[in-house]
Amino acid sequence: MFHTVAAVSTPPGKGGVALIRISGEEAAAVADRMFIPLQGGKLSDQPPRRAVFGSIISPDTGEILDTGVAVIFRAPASYTGEDTAEISCHGGVAVTRATLAAAFAAGAEPAGPGDFTRRAFVNGKLTLTEAEAVGLLIDADTESRRALASGAVRGNLTRALDPIGDALSRVLSAIYAAIDYPDEDIGDEGEREIAGVIRASMADIDRLAATYKTGSAIAQGIPTAIAGLPNSGKSSLYNALLGSDDAIVTDIPGTTRDVLSAQADVGGVTLCLADTAGIRDGTDTVEMIGVERARQKIAQAALVLLVCDASQPLHEDFCTLARDVRESAPAAHIIAVMNKSDLPAAGDGETEKFLGGVADDVIRISAKRGDGMDALRAAVARAAGTDMLDVSSDAVIWDARQQAALHRAYTSLSEAETALCAGEPLDAVCMLCENALSEIRGVDGRAVDEEIVAGIFARFCVGK
Amino acid sequence: MFHTVAAVSTPPGKGGVALIRISGEEAAAVADRMFIPLQGGKLSDQPPRRAVFGSIISPDTGEILDTGVAVIFRAPASYTGEDTAEISCHGGVAVTRATLAAAFAAGAEPAGPGDFTRRAFVNGKLTLTEAEAVGLLIDADTESRRALASGAVRGNLTRALDPIGDALSRVLSAIYAAIDYPDEDIGDEGEREIAGVIRASMADIDRLAATYKTGSAIAQGIPTAIAGLPNSGKSSLYNALLGSDDAIVTDIPGTTRDVLSAQADVGGVTLCLADTAGIRDGTDTVEMIGVERARQKIAQAALVLLVCDASQPLHEDFCTLARDVRESAPAAHIIAVMNKSDLPAAGDGETEKFLGGVADDVIRISAKRGDGMDALRAAVARAAGTDMLDVSSDAVIWDARQQAALHRAYTSLSEAETALCAGEPLDAVCMLCENALSEIRGVDGRAVDEEIVAGIFARFCVGK
Repeated sequence: MFHTVAAVSTPPGKGGVALIRISGEEAAAVADRMFIPLQGGKLSDQPPRRAVFGSIISPDTGEILDTGVAVIFRAPASYTGEDTAEISCHGGVAVTRATLAAAFAAGAEPAGPGDFTRRAFVNGKLTLTEAEAVGLLIDADTESRRALASGAVRGNLTRALDPIGDALSRVLSAIYAAIDYPDEDIGDEGEREIAGVIRASMADIDRLAATYKTGSAIAQGIPTAIAGLPNSGKSSLYNALLGSDDAIVTDIPGTTRDVLSAQADVGGVTLCLADTAGIRDGTDTVEMIGVERARQKIAQAALVLLVCDASQPLHEDFCTLARDVRESAPAAHIIAVMNKSDLPAAGDGETEKFLGGVADDVIRISAKRGDGMDALRAAVARAAGTDMLDVSSDAVIWDARQQAALHRAYTSLSEAETALCAGEPLDAVCMLCENALSEIRGVDGRAVDEEIVAGIFARFCVGK
Repeated sequence: MFHTVAAVSTPPGKGGVALIRISGEEAAAVADRMFIPLQGGKLSDQPPRRAVFGSIISPDTGEILDTGVAVIFRAPASYTGEDTAEISCHGGVAVTRATLAAAFAAGAEPAGPGDFTRRAFVNGKLTLTEAEAVGLLIDADTESRRALASGAVRGNLTRALDPIGDALSRVLSAIYAAIDYPDEDIGDEGEREIAGVIRASMADIDRLAATYKTGSAIAQGIPTAIAGLPNSGKSSLYNALLGSDDAIVTDIPGTTRDVLSAQADVGGVTLCLADTAGIRDGTDTVEMIGVERARQKIAQAALVLLVCDASQPLHEDFCTLARDVRESAPAAHIIAVMNKSDLPAAGDGETEKFLGGVADDVIRISAKRGDGMDALRAAVARAAGTDMLDVSSDAVIWDARQQAALHRAYTSLSEAETALCAGEPLDAVCMLCENALSEIRGVDGRAVDEEIVAGIFARFCVGK
């Protein structure tokens, strides 16, 4: 069906070892044309999954290009689910290029982006979310992204979606049966049972959808603004965030989605700090809160670090600014950062009282000294919900596509339940449940029709 | 003897797959603590060289970090000659870091630069030149560097050095025997035979040493200057060289040895073009041939591309410049480049006659049109000697260390032959031959004493 393709699977550049992966029906034949085992014989005659030393040759000239190790994986016990050959050569730029060229000369075609993982999906080795998670894992530059992605690659999300889909499948089978055999009335009890399963599925979907806040905070980061009056310590906080022990991820090519923003890893959550240059220069946008552009920045933030100078009494300007922030970003999580804890506090308790009313969380730090960063990390974790989930083992969604599909499924089920309870025709309920199942299965990229058909006949008794 | 060490063996950065290599006595035990086979049981209970699917875990927390493939190679059938475990994870930055950290937590220590190859050398898996060639192969950014390095990794040079060392070993055994048993006179015939072997070895060494020109031209590149009068087309030639179909290797980090020079791959030979900026600006150093700095540039060049405008009659200024170049760089190879072949030639034959006397090679090109670049490539190949050697299969030296050792060996043998023929005491001849053998074995990093001892007793008959 697919051509046999080859690509360098290891990162580009210079290293001890590079790996060329060949996948497809002809993988073993391609490998045989470019790899001569040291021990003699053909590579493809070796047992699968055995690492074989040998020479990598040019199929055209017979020139020995390098010595290396080759392994053949036989379908379906391979990453792609197809026959796969993996050939390791020395990790130099020219030798890696030459080895890949040998694979092409031996009959493989160049693999497209994500080609191997696409094949794994098509061959049922990975669900769509698992395949998406592979992409996230490869992009992951922080420990929490790795944990989230690795969990999803291992099927955490798939395992949470499957029972919901199965439950809806059973509901649909029952409804189809009732429609097809109207003389076997489904009855009030049957309807109650169906309504119960629908409500349970809605609760499951709701629980899963609620993980989006945390998942997206880890996977994509949280758009964050730092707001505060001049000289309250915004720049110091900015520097403390970027200069913390946590990794700064701005300088890794391909991981920064917006060159104008700096990213800081704060306790595993990536804060995408808007308008870096402005903050760096001490001319924070928030100082010009009246300016429309500044309001937009705040409005786009999902998290605002509202900085005040706790060594000074509460000032009316700060109250105005804080209320302005709340108004500009009504849905944002606001962490009030009482800065300058190294200085004697103003001590009148007015600031705390005010902040308690306007912010979601209040912490004390000394950005200058670096004190209180643990409190900040904890507050960010609360904002992102990472304190409530173990992203390595819990089912978590992180992608807008997944979130939208769950939302549509929930809406359909809600309408189905209403229709069912209102005694509307089963056809309407059926269609809505079909929609919901299709959305749930769509998250994992599974075809839905065949499955429903199979489910129906599975509920039939033998001989009927 | 060595600690068990671990490192990421694939290039740094982002890719489908990364490989963590663990080597040392504890390699299998370290791998067992961080890798759980999918099929159950311990990785170390699997047959060696079998690729096993499983989970990469944190030995500290038991958290599953990723899923991957692990292979154990048992000593001595591994790259290092020690027990080695290779664990492949997804090629993301964070997951690669986490997998390496797991190896450290499981008991491995961080591998130093070249640690695995050093172990391979110490364990006799590679000779010193083969180990050096691994470094060259990993650095190789051009096809000819790859071919040279790959040939040396596969022992091309070792196989050329071995018979020389063996011949000298036999000579020394004979001399030792003559010294130890003076009553068994070595005789005139014996001396002639020894002198013959010494002369044959000298010829072999000479032949090998002569490959240095080609090997170093490929491995390190040729310091090259472009000389010519204003408006003869130096800049066009420079651009044609850098813009040719061959790879330009200036922009690969770590491969450019001098940031002030541009490197052009011309038919597999890297030309290190000096003082790029000068040439680029059209204010070539050679235009100011009187200036001392310009003379130095020419004097440092091993190859000079002497450009003239072939559409103009031979000019006295050009003759002066050409003689100046020859004088400044008496040992350099000069390729006279008759440029502007797209224009009607001056046609009086004077230029050709003059150039025939001053240059090593004369070619015609149109740098502007890109005509004649094949002729230039061929001339560069003649200058580097790459037309005379197949660096993929012939023994080639490329390193100043190898060249110096061969030179010292040759000198010692030359003195030994003189001493032998002059009838000097065998002790003196012996010492000189020992020096020579030590140099030859030193090229490959082999200990010499034990070998000689073993050689002596091998020539003794049993029971003596």
